[in-house]
Amino acid sequence: MSSNHSSSTMPPATRILGPLKVPSKLLMGPGPSNMRESVRIVLGAPLLGHMHTEFINIMDDVKAGLQYLFQTNNELTFAVSGSGHAGMECAVMNLLEPGETVLVVQTGIWGQRVADLVDRLGGRVQTLNVEAGKAATLEMFSKAVEDCKPAVVFVCQGESSTGVAQPLEGFGDVCHKNGALLLVDAVASIGCVPLQMDALNIDCVYAATQKVLGAPPGLAMVSFSECAVQKMRTRKTRVPSFYFDAFELANYWGCSNEPRRYHHTAPISLVYALREALSEIANEGLEQCLLRHRQCADFLYSKLEEIGLKPYVKEKSIRLPGLTTIELPPNVEFKLIIDKLMSQGIEIAGGLGPTVGKVWRIGTFGVNADKEKILKTVHALDEALKTVHNKDV
Amino acid sequence: MSSNHSSSTMPPATRILGPLKVPSKLLMGPGPSNMRESVRIVLGAPLLGHMHTEFINIMDDVKAGLQYLFQTNNELTFAVSGSGHAGMECAVMNLLEPGETVLVVQTGIWGQRVADLVDRLGGRVQTLNVEAGKAATLEMFSKAVEDCKPAVVFVCQGESSTGVAQPLEGFGDVCHKNGALLLVDAVASIGCVPLQMDALNIDCVYAATQKVLGAPPGLAMVSFSECAVQKMRTRKTRVPSFYFDAFELANYWGCSNEPRRYHHTAPISLVYALREALSEIANEGLEQCLLRHRQCADFLYSKLEEIGLKPYVKEKSIRLPGLTTIELPPNVEFKLIIDKLMSQGIEIAGGLGPTVGKVWRIGTFGVNADKEKILKTVHALDEALKTVHNKDV
Repeated sequence: MSSNHSSSTMPPATRILGPLKVPSKLLMGPGPSNMRESVRIVLGAPLLGHMHTEFINIMDDVKAGLQYLFQTNNELTFAVSGSGHAGMECAVMNLLEPGETVLVVQTGIWGQRVADLVDRLGGRVQTLNVEAGKAATLEMFSKAVEDCKPAVVFVCQGESSTGVAQPLEGFGDVCHKNGALLLVDAVASIGCVPLQMDALNIDCVYAATQKVLGAPPGLAMVSFSECAVQKMRTRKTRVPSFYFDAFELANYWGCSNEPRRYHHTAPISLVYALREALSEIANEGLEQCLLRHRQCADFLYSKLEEIGLKPYVKEKSIRLPGLTTIELPPNVEFKLIIDKLMSQGIEIAGGLGPTVGKVWRIGTFGVNADKEKILKTVHALDEALKTVHNKDV
Repeated sequence: MSSNHSSSTMPPATRILGPLKVPSKLLMGPGPSNMRESVRIVLGAPLLGHMHTEFINIMDDVKAGLQYLFQTNNELTFAVSGSGHAGMECAVMNLLEPGETVLVVQTGIWGQRVADLVDRLGGRVQTLNVEAGKAATLEMFSKAVEDCKPAVVFVCQGESSTGVAQPLEGFGDVCHKNGALLLVDAVASIGCVPLQMDALNIDCVYAATQKVLGAPPGLAMVSFSECAVQKMRTRKTRVPSFYFDAFELANYWGCSNEPRRYHHTAPISLVYALREALSEIANEGLEQCLLRHRQCADFLYSKLEEIGLKPYVKEKSIRLPGLTTIELPPNVEFKLIIDKLMSQGIEIAGGLGPTVGKVWRIGTFGVNADKEKILKTVHALDEALKTVHNKDV
C-alpha cells in the first residue's frame, strides 16, 4: 500500500459500524413469506466451492427436486442465480430473437414487465388485455394466438397483483398448433396451484424461492421443454447475456452430456436453502402441499366473511390460494390498517398495479399456510378495523 | 386440484428426500473463501420484506459501506442481485451501446469474458494483449487507448487466473483525455489491493462478496461515476435488461431523489450478510485490512520458498496479495496434489485460462488471510509433495 493512499483514506460512515438489527415479523404479504426453520438452519452451513464434487451433488439434488416441483422430465431444469425477475429475463432472452412477436396475456403487472423487457430486446409486443380480477378464457386465448401468430406467448399463472390463478388447460396445445412457445410465470403459483408442465405442454416455466418454498429470495427456477431447446438451438442471434444464457447455465447445471464448465459462482448458501425447501416439499408430497394451501385459502375466506370482508376475485375457482385479494370496505384508509398491523409485526399488503387503492393482499404461502397464523392475522385486521370505525363514530 | 392431476403426479426422486450434507473445508482457493463467523450468524436472521422500512435502512447501511470500500462519493453505488459476473453484465450493459468499441486489456480470462459479452451486445472489441503473469504499463495502455478511441476501456485489477494485480495509476486520466470511460473489475482485488475509485478517476467498478469480504456469493457490488451517469443518461438505445438496468437499480437502492419503486425482490439474507461483512471491514479499517492481506501474502511467499516453491509472478510489486499463483515443480502431477489436499479438507486450485497446467493457486482472502491457516496449507502441500516424490524414487 503506497503511503499517499494511506494518508487520504476516507473514513466509513458511522451507520455501518454498528451491529445488524432485524425484527421478527409474520410475513402475510405477497412474499417473501417466512422461512422454514430447516431452511434457516442450512443457510449457516459451511461454504463449499462452486465446482466441488459435494456441491455438484447438491445441484443434482436441486435439479431432481425441481423436476418434481414442475412435474417435468425436461433435461434443461435448473436455477438461475437471481431473484424471480431473473427467471423472467433468462426465459425471454433465450426464447426470443429481435423482431419476433410476443403475445402477452395481460392480467396484471407481470405482463407489463414482460412487455417492457421484450421492447428492450427489440421484440414486438401484442397484448391480450384481460379485466383485472378475471382470467383469460381458452376461447379468447385461442383467438388472440391465431390472430397475431406470435413466436412466444406469455401467461402468468399466479397473478399476484390481482390474486387470480389463470387456468392453463389447453393453452399449450393452442400455442403449438400455431407455432408458438408457451412461457408461464409461476412465481406466485408454484406449490399452491397444480402445474404439470409436461402434461400441459408448457415450453418454459420460471418460479422463485421466497413464496411457497419458504426459502430466502435470490434464486429463480427455470425449465425449458424440448421444443424450446430446439428453437434456442437454431437462433440466428446470440443471447444478449452470458449470465442468463440457458445453454451455458445448462452446462454448469449438468443438463448436457458435456463436462461441466465454470460459468459463474453460484450463491452456495441459497442453493443449500433451495435444496432443503425442495426436500421438505418432496417429503410432504406435492399433492398434500397443494391441498394444504387450498384448505388454508378456504379457511381464510370463511374467516374474512365472519368479519364482513369479501374476496376481490368473485369467481372462486380462479382465486390464487397463496394470495388472497380483499375488497376494501367503504371509508377505510387502507394504508392506515396496513400500518397498524405492521406495528404489531404482521405484514399484509395493499394493491399493486391495477389493484392499487382497491384491495388488501394476504399471503398464505409455505409455512404461513397455517390456520393459527391466518387466525392471528384476521383477528388483528378485525381489531384494526374496529379501532378505525370507533374513531369514525 | 382436479382429480386427473392428482392421479398422475410423478413421484420425487429419492435423492431429494434425504437431508443436506455439507462437509467443512478450509477454502484456500480463488474463492469463495470461508465465511466470517458473524456473517454466518446473520444469514439466519428472520426475513424482512424487500420494501420494509427496516430493510431499506439496511440497504442504506450497505450503500455507505460500499462507498467506504470503493473509496468513492458516487451516488450510484449499490449491489446487484447476482454473483460477480452479474456485476460485469450490469456494468457493460449500461455503459455500452451497440456499435461502440470496448478496449479490453487482456491479462487473463476476465478480459475474454468481457469481450464475449460485448460481442453479444453488438459492440466492437479491441484487445490489448498482455503476457500472462505481467501487467500492462501506462505507456502501452496510453498508446492502445489513443489508437482505438474506445467508448469504454476494461481493466481487471485483480486477475485471478494469473495472480497479477494491475496498477491503475494514471489509467483514468488517459481514458478521460480520450473520451473513454474506465471500467475496472475488482472482484478478486477489493479489500486486498488499494482501490481509491474517485482519486483514480475510475468510472465504474464492480466486485463481489465471496473473497475478501467473506460473505457468501450472490451479490455483486457496483459503483458508477458522474461521467458514467452522464453517458448512461444520453443513451440512444434501451439497456437490454430490466434486471441490470442501472437507473432502475439506483432507484430501488435510494440513489436518486425519487421515491423508491419496487424493482425486484432482493436476496434479503445475502444483503444482511453483505452488511455484516462491510461492517467488519469498516471496524477493522480498510488500511488495516489491506495491510493484513499484504503481510499474509509475504508470509506465504516465505513459507513457499522454504519448501522450494516459487511464485509464478516474478515482479513482486504486481502480485495479487489475496491470490498467489505458484509455479509447478518439474515432474509433479498438479491435479494429484490438489486431490490429496482436498481429501484432507483443504482446497487449493489449479490454473485457469492462460495458467491451466502451469500453476497452483492459493487464496488468502478475508478470514483466510491468517498465518495459521497459511502454515497449515503450506504444510499439507509440502507433505503431499514429499509423498509424491517418495513414490517417484
